[in-house]
Amino acid sequence: MSTTHPVDRRERLLEVAARIFSERGYNGASMQDLAEGLGILRGSIYAHIDSKEDLLYEIVDRGADRFISSLQAVAGTDESASDKLRAALLAHVETVAEHMEAATVFLNDWKLLSPKRRKAVVAKRNIYQSLIREIVDEGIRRGEFRKSLDPKFATLVVLSCVNWLYQWYDPKGALRPPEIASQFSEMILKGFSKGA
Amino acid sequence: MSTTHPVDRRERLLEVAARIFSERGYNGASMQDLAEGLGILRGSIYAHIDSKEDLLYEIVDRGADRFISSLQAVAGTDESASDKLRAALLAHVETVAEHMEAATVFLNDWKLLSPKRRKAVVAKRNIYQSLIREIVDEGIRRGEFRKSLDPKFATLVVLSCVNWLYQWYDPKGALRPPEIASQFSEMILKGFSKGA
Repeated sequence: MSTTHPVDRRERLLEVAARIFSERGYNGASMQDLAEGLGILRGSIYAHIDSKEDLLYEIVDRGADRFISSLQAVAGTDESASDKLRAALLAHVETVAEHMEAATVFLNDWKLLSPKRRKAVVAKRNIYQSLIREIVDEGIRRGEFRKSLDPKFATLVVLSCVNWLYQWYDPKGALRPPEIASQFSEMILKGFSKGA
Repeated sequence: MSTTHPVDRRERLLEVAARIFSERGYNGASMQDLAEGLGILRGSIYAHIDSKEDLLYEIVDRGADRFISSLQAVAGTDESASDKLRAALLAHVETVAEHMEAATVFLNDWKLLSPKRRKAVVAKRNIYQSLIREIVDEGIRRGEFRKSLDPKFATLVVLSCVNWLYQWYDPKGALRPPEIASQFSEMILKGFSKGA
């Protein structure tokens, strides 16, 4: 690793850590495992890593930023609430599909962070959640979605569908992100609609 | 532990293991942690446990059995597909709520089992999934659900909502299982319905 650029080195380190944490769980991954994954000696691992928890935090924090920025790009448009929701689902599904290992670490292991860092992650999760919630509220306000819709549960249904994805999505399978997102959108939007 | 009945002892062992695995992840829990949780000495832990993986398997396997038997009780009735789905959602939400720690271990750590045991768990997950799928198929066949419904995704939406629950359900919160199940059912069934 010593001949590569520092930024590439950091990327590679995070990639290897995400893979190993996603396979064994954060607590099951040793410094030895990380050194082996990077192809360096166990003794020199601390030249690259301050602490294992720093890596976990960076994976989780970057994951949160990725989800938030993809959603912000969608939420700020002039589209209808339905179209925003469609775009949000697609953006989320694509982000999970492109970063399956980081998504797995994010969703399985974030609770293992220290309390202070966990709090920072919860704050970012709340931002994400309220961006979805705003789309739902807007849809109800504008009369696109039915008045009887419970916005809290409507938001939860959306989050459940996209967050559960990492457990079943097969990167080599026939189902691609656009079809997954459109199938979910169709069913969710029908559940939100005013029709019978 | 030595003065209690062997069956109670096993139950207590599984309960303590589920709590510790759910808090630290299976790979993060040591024999020392389990001994401390049980209030016994590290040296005597093997009198109670053959291997840590046996405990993981028993937690996961019992979890799978619990979900399957609660769903079989529902699937075998003469109710409409909609009512079966409502009852299935309620049974699942109640099972997660009553066994939050075991559910967390089931969903986060099942992949850490040995290949043979993982295969056995996948087989039981498939049984569960096909019981939900049968209700969906029945609803489409009987004309209760719309013909255009994709049964694979319809099943996935149901599974996503109930499986994601362990990440947000608060056993001390105001939202109880019947309300959670009924809110999800209402939205999902509307998404499945023939209306506009």
